[in-house]
Amino acid sequence: MRKILIIGAGRSASSLVKFLLDSSDKENLKVIIADISIENANKLAQNHPNSKVLKLDIFNEVDRKREIKSADIVISMLPARFHMEVAKDCVEFEKSLVTASYISEELKALNDEVVGKGLVFMNEIGLDPGVDHMSAMQIIDRIKDQGGKMIMFESFTGGLVAPESDTNLWHYKFTWNPRNVVVAGQGGVAKFIQEGKYKYIPYNKLFRRTEFLEVENYGRFEALANRDSLKYREIYGLEDIKTLYRGTIRRVGFSRAWNIFVQLGMTDDSYIMEGSKNLSYREFTNSFLPYKPTDSVELKLRHCLKIDQDDIIWDKLLELDIFNPKKIVGLKDATPAQILQKILMESWTLEKEDKDMIVMYHKFGFELNGEKKQIESNMVVIGDDQTYTAMAKTVGLPVAIATLKILNGEIKTPGVQLPISKEVYEPILKELQSHGINFIEKEVEYLGYNPFNL
Amino acid sequence: MRKILIIGAGRSASSLVKFLLDSSDKENLKVIIADISIENANKLAQNHPNSKVLKLDIFNEVDRKREIKSADIVISMLPARFHMEVAKDCVEFEKSLVTASYISEELKALNDEVVGKGLVFMNEIGLDPGVDHMSAMQIIDRIKDQGGKMIMFESFTGGLVAPESDTNLWHYKFTWNPRNVVVAGQGGVAKFIQEGKYKYIPYNKLFRRTEFLEVENYGRFEALANRDSLKYREIYGLEDIKTLYRGTIRRVGFSRAWNIFVQLGMTDDSYIMEGSKNLSYREFTNSFLPYKPTDSVELKLRHCLKIDQDDIIWDKLLELDIFNPKKIVGLKDATPAQILQKILMESWTLEKEDKDMIVMYHKFGFELNGEKKQIESNMVVIGDDQTYTAMAKTVGLPVAIATLKILNGEIKTPGVQLPISKEVYEPILKELQSHGINFIEKEVEYLGYNPFNL
Repeated sequence: MRKILIIGAGRSASSLVKFLLDSSDKENLKVIIADISIENANKLAQNHPNSKVLKLDIFNEVDRKREIKSADIVISMLPARFHMEVAKDCVEFEKSLVTASYISEELKALNDEVVGKGLVFMNEIGLDPGVDHMSAMQIIDRIKDQGGKMIMFESFTGGLVAPESDTNLWHYKFTWNPRNVVVAGQGGVAKFIQEGKYKYIPYNKLFRRTEFLEVENYGRFEALANRDSLKYREIYGLEDIKTLYRGTIRRVGFSRAWNIFVQLGMTDDSYIMEGSKNLSYREFTNSFLPYKPTDSVELKLRHCLKIDQDDIIWDKLLELDIFNPKKIVGLKDATPAQILQKILMESWTLEKEDKDMIVMYHKFGFELNGEKKQIESNMVVIGDDQTYTAMAKTVGLPVAIATLKILNGEIKTPGVQLPISKEVYEPILKELQSHGINFIEKEVEYLGYNPFNL
Repeated sequence: MRKILIIGAGRSASSLVKFLLDSSDKENLKVIIADISIENANKLAQNHPNSKVLKLDIFNEVDRKREIKSADIVISMLPARFHMEVAKDCVEFEKSLVTASYISEELKALNDEVVGKGLVFMNEIGLDPGVDHMSAMQIIDRIKDQGGKMIMFESFTGGLVAPESDTNLWHYKFTWNPRNVVVAGQGGVAKFIQEGKYKYIPYNKLFRRTEFLEVENYGRFEALANRDSLKYREIYGLEDIKTLYRGTIRRVGFSRAWNIFVQLGMTDDSYIMEGSKNLSYREFTNSFLPYKPTDSVELKLRHCLKIDQDDIIWDKLLELDIFNPKKIVGLKDATPAQILQKILMESWTLEKEDKDMIVMYHKFGFELNGEKKQIESNMVVIGDDQTYTAMAKTVGLPVAIATLKILNGEIKTPGVQLPISKEVYEPILKELQSHGINFIEKEVEYLGYNPFNL
């Protein structure tokens, strides 16, 4: 039997493990699930006869090297900062490696050795990065092969709650790391290019400069700019592109309401609030408003942020209970962002029966035979349950499929790489389709940038 | 003759040098002016018979030690980060030292040695810090001596343009380091305490949470919160104070207009703008606005920031010419803040005949015999010309006076210190009065916090 070693058995590994175990008889696989927590590993293995679980501390060099040496291929689902320990051993013992993380400079530096030994180090093959790369490059390559010239590329991804589980005014629940949602957009200006003009959105305007997206059967969404759009010029071979924009998808109205937290300063993660542990939610909110004992916290907030009497934003704030004088923060030495996260988690945590949803949306603008054309393509994936979530499926299945195809020699070009070549994305996208991960594509009139915000 | 060594002969040393040279016959002084630029030193010395100029690189240890060794007392007007080189030599050769900078942890660590050798290391004895400490402590100590209990302290300082030179719509010109003005308020939340409640203002609200101050004969000013109000609790012995707030003074309307730059992202100093050198002012402005070729930059800006047709803010923006398509930035690899600074310097640089103005304003709230009382005290200083500016006078004269009083043994308590003891502030404030630096004090009804913003 061929041994696949999976290091890291967190939530995002569920669909990955299931796919490999489901294929294990046919493909003659032994799936070894190694984690610092044996419970995590057991949960995923579910006593499958072709599975083996293993308690592994990746900083225990002897154990780590032994397991990597005896595997046929390695998947690292560890946090990105831990990949290098694994990668170096994979070079030493000549094993191919698959990760869903961005390629670090350190990893890239191994490329010559990896090529020399004929290994495939496939990275960025989860959802985002991953499915976004493959689905975009498939269409970009096709346009180029037909003689088209790319003039616009916009790409949006969001992890959301499924429509059937969408039960709050924000149309949002935490389906992934809540902290990333609270601090999203901080740490640098959002920078992109539109019709050849560089544009910059500072954090305090980020949630007011959204654009709309329509997805058939799912209605309207909004997108806010990511920080890092421009790096995709080089990766996707779009050096001369006039418009390049990447964004995060939310349901319409989320950002306008979230902006209240940004404006108040509640998303700040850079300082500790005095006496945070004993603050009530109401006092927390009041900390960001002027001192004025004869006015209510409510009226001060409405006035400070000019929120009309009948604005739906207000109901969204009430739903989160941020004016409650009895609920206590209970977090010692906490930053505003940490306190806000706690408050949000009380409202936005998935219920037992809730399902999540992944939405991805691409827009491709190009010139072909002197004509401007536009293709739009979107994918919606709904989770099965709270184990096999849409997030776990869209992250894990591409990893699993890529691993098997590398093991079987179908993907064989060696090197430290991401899935942007036909050899890689064609077979993987094809197989993803049979697992419900597929894109709906349509040609539309060339609309250029941001047609709904006219 | 007694030798006073002044290291650092920048603009802020003009009044300092003049005071010492003016006193030099009577006080039997030799004033040695040392700078890396002999021209700077010559400009200040003006061939006065009791002066000596000297080219000194403070990193030349031999030269530095020789000069410090042969002096009777040393003044360091260097940038704060260079004081330690001088301070260590002063300890070694047993010379007292005077600076206008905040006491660093490193300098504080020399205290035992300084005390052991009976030296006075007087710091924070310029304007702010300096005059603010002395003028505040004089009244705080008096209130406490009378049996009063401090309940509120607010303190505001601003470097502005004198009324007779106030010729633009912003009522502002650069009288000090322009860069500090452009990035003011960044790098941390403004934090203070009001009636026992901690309050936090994020950068994006800082310029919208001002309060008003009235100064007799000078009209109305506004103040915005500084970052560091709370550290004064300990320094001034105000541990139980209910309200503590420090702020920066501007003319009314400045902050509301400045907020436009903050909201657009033009004050950001954290990233380089693509092709900054060849951007026109209009393109610079447009970089922060949505792409929309059928709308003017003007309308996009008005819309984005909701600026009414007849809002004076608009005239302020026009005055700075930020929509000019012909003026070119001309700065390679510049940040938004650097570009904004360049644009502002074209409008806000002092003309040859312009004078500057320093305004300081304190509010003291206290309880005495069961009654709440309030004292307000303010100082206005106008510059003589562009050499003996209000800034140079208010920074340099306290340094000069303190130096002479240490040299003459009138200030003698040894240690690394700032001017908060009666021994120090009483004689210095008294002498400052005869140089036009004096406070007007009045008792008012107890108004508590921020009465004009009701």
